[in-house]
Amino acid sequence: MQRQKLFVDGARLKETIETFAEFGRTPANGVTRLSLGPEDLQARAYFRTCCEELGMTVVTDDLGCMYATLEGKRKTQPIVIGSHLDSVKKGGRFDGVLGVIAGLEVVRTLVDAGIQPEIPITVMNFTNEEGARFEPSMMASGVLAGKFDRDEMLDKRDADGVTFRQALEDGGYLGSPDHRLREARAYLELHIEQGPVLEKEGLSIGIVEAVVGMACYEIEVAGESDHAGTTPMEMRKDAFFAANDLVTLLRSRLGVLDPELVFTMGRVNVYPGIHTVIPNKVVFTVEARHKEEDVVRRVEQIIQELPGEEGGCTVKATKLWGRDTVWFKPELCGHLEEAARSFGYSYKRMASGAGHDAQFVASFLPSVMLFVPSVNGKSHCEEEFTSGEDCEKGVNVLLETVLRLLEE
Amino acid sequence: MQRQKLFVDGARLKETIETFAEFGRTPANGVTRLSLGPEDLQARAYFRTCCEELGMTVVTDDLGCMYATLEGKRKTQPIVIGSHLDSVKKGGRFDGVLGVIAGLEVVRTLVDAGIQPEIPITVMNFTNEEGARFEPSMMASGVLAGKFDRDEMLDKRDADGVTFRQALEDGGYLGSPDHRLREARAYLELHIEQGPVLEKEGLSIGIVEAVVGMACYEIEVAGESDHAGTTPMEMRKDAFFAANDLVTLLRSRLGVLDPELVFTMGRVNVYPGIHTVIPNKVVFTVEARHKEEDVVRRVEQIIQELPGEEGGCTVKATKLWGRDTVWFKPELCGHLEEAARSFGYSYKRMASGAGHDAQFVASFLPSVMLFVPSVNGKSHCEEEFTSGEDCEKGVNVLLETVLRLLEE
Repeated sequence: MQRQKLFVDGARLKETIETFAEFGRTPANGVTRLSLGPEDLQARAYFRTCCEELGMTVVTDDLGCMYATLEGKRKTQPIVIGSHLDSVKKGGRFDGVLGVIAGLEVVRTLVDAGIQPEIPITVMNFTNEEGARFEPSMMASGVLAGKFDRDEMLDKRDADGVTFRQALEDGGYLGSPDHRLREARAYLELHIEQGPVLEKEGLSIGIVEAVVGMACYEIEVAGESDHAGTTPMEMRKDAFFAANDLVTLLRSRLGVLDPELVFTMGRVNVYPGIHTVIPNKVVFTVEARHKEEDVVRRVEQIIQELPGEEGGCTVKATKLWGRDTVWFKPELCGHLEEAARSFGYSYKRMASGAGHDAQFVASFLPSVMLFVPSVNGKSHCEEEFTSGEDCEKGVNVLLETVLRLLEE
Repeated sequence: MQRQKLFVDGARLKETIETFAEFGRTPANGVTRLSLGPEDLQARAYFRTCCEELGMTVVTDDLGCMYATLEGKRKTQPIVIGSHLDSVKKGGRFDGVLGVIAGLEVVRTLVDAGIQPEIPITVMNFTNEEGARFEPSMMASGVLAGKFDRDEMLDKRDADGVTFRQALEDGGYLGSPDHRLREARAYLELHIEQGPVLEKEGLSIGIVEAVVGMACYEIEVAGESDHAGTTPMEMRKDAFFAANDLVTLLRSRLGVLDPELVFTMGRVNVYPGIHTVIPNKVVFTVEARHKEEDVVRRVEQIIQELPGEEGGCTVKATKLWGRDTVWFKPELCGHLEEAARSFGYSYKRMASGAGHDAQFVASFLPSVMLFVPSVNGKSHCEEEFTSGEDCEKGVNVLLETVLRLLEE
């Protein structure tokens, strides 16, 4: 087959990214665009206009997710390209929105080239992926995947007490459940990496094979509060010193499990927190992620094998939650890989350490993600940045993958 | 010399302790008696009544300190026995008040025995020792010793915005600076140990040679906040892991300095404190106490020798404050020791790890303290307890010491 190679318009892509960044731009050139807030509604309206200009039909489901569809020659299940327009507070100009713009640019390029696809192409905007306004994150995709209950989610309130349902109604985005994502030839999501790996390794494209599984535990160390001046060292039950030894133990055991394992003790509270009082309680989280279930299971075993007593203090480990690794469709990873190769772009297969709507969609549709580099690995902050060139490469790979799927 | 051996009335002592515990007693049998609050004013009034019944004259200085004096045969500088009637919130029935009651019982015993002392005996109540209502602690003795500025202290406000001056005026305790403690043959203070040493070693009396010197530092470890899921371990600047290593290092170095050294890391804050975010900052205090200046100096050296960088994070140590060891009068320690021996009480010479008014008084008057055991080393809490027998032994030693001083 000898078709013409298509490329996206890099200048237009860059311009579109900047235009969307206007909706909620912060003084430090980041973005605050909470789901269904005024800035998000502006972005949604602009997205709709862009799509309608391309002759796409835009509908909304009962969770506010937007579906812009370019008809195909055949009325059949579409190729879906999606991500989210919402951001965290003082977030960046790329997280989420880049994947929606990527879909838009793919369609624009096809339309410019006068191509009517064999099958429909739908560009999606998932509502409230970040969970920054209504918890939990990935709310809409979670409902679509049957992981969350719709009515329960509609009752979630933001910090001002406004329910998700009310926000949908007020914004005019309480659509029909008939429009929900149910079938697709493939679900494709382009996203920034949100980590430093691609940049550090000098690569342009990440082909995401999986969203890693994780386990999160809370460790409580209970000792005794005594006077810091009058209690000899050997008579103390210092919860902080005990916790310190446990952290050292955990780090040494977890550290040798697997080079790709990541583990973090991000929430640490020491009580009562007075410099003249020996701490009587320390509570800290241990959160670990790895794509292989065996490694995560080994982490849990190590945590469960912590001594019940340390330095005179009692030790209790409680599992807060966990999730299994989500594997994306190998066939689609293969398509992405060939597409990247066809442009001569450097790439690697990798796992996503962060959560994405795609991980829920993958439970009922063939799905895959691709990453573009994040400068310094930063995301969810105003410094979040991906170069125009890298964005362009990512969208080219997405476009090429769509073309390959259309040719099947 | 063959004088009659005097003993305090143990039953009366116990009863007096319980009577004072009525002023601010909590449901859990502790005491909340903040300085110059209604309960403290009740306790002060009762103390005055008790003293006046003994024929003592009660005056107040400009800091609200009360001085109840039993005239001596000679008008000369008195023996002063003091402590404080105020408590912390939900404190115990012994801390402070026991030392005032001890003075009262000494005088009662002398009066009962028909003894008019050679020189005057003054029983003192220091205002606001705890600093629980107006910071700092040991406020009045600090002014008497010239360590704190009187006007600055009078402007200190409690949590409700009431100034110390206002509280003094409202309570009728803004007395005359002429009455301030300026001279004494000796200043004696009996106090509960507030630590577990006497009880653990099965001893009745602690002869306090010194209030230990201390140094308090704040260590700040600054790393970088990154996504807990997407940042490989080797690319992290995890401030908590760096702090974990620094704490281990400090503990191993400080732990071998001297068996009597105590050190505590009581205030520990980990930022931003989110389980999915790698900590970018940890701030923790290191507070160490020892009676020998050399040891405290060595502690400071160890802290100052911390590496400037650890695990990719910057490390900064700041001294918050320090104080030198206060040595009590060896001659008075000798008197206490002989007094304890004369009753056959077990005792040890020790240092106080906690601060007391006596440490300020010691800067201008010959001073000493004695301790009685604290059950489980507890103080500043409702469980604070010292047995009636131990209280009685302590007051007997105090009485005997006064008699020995009177005989000189």
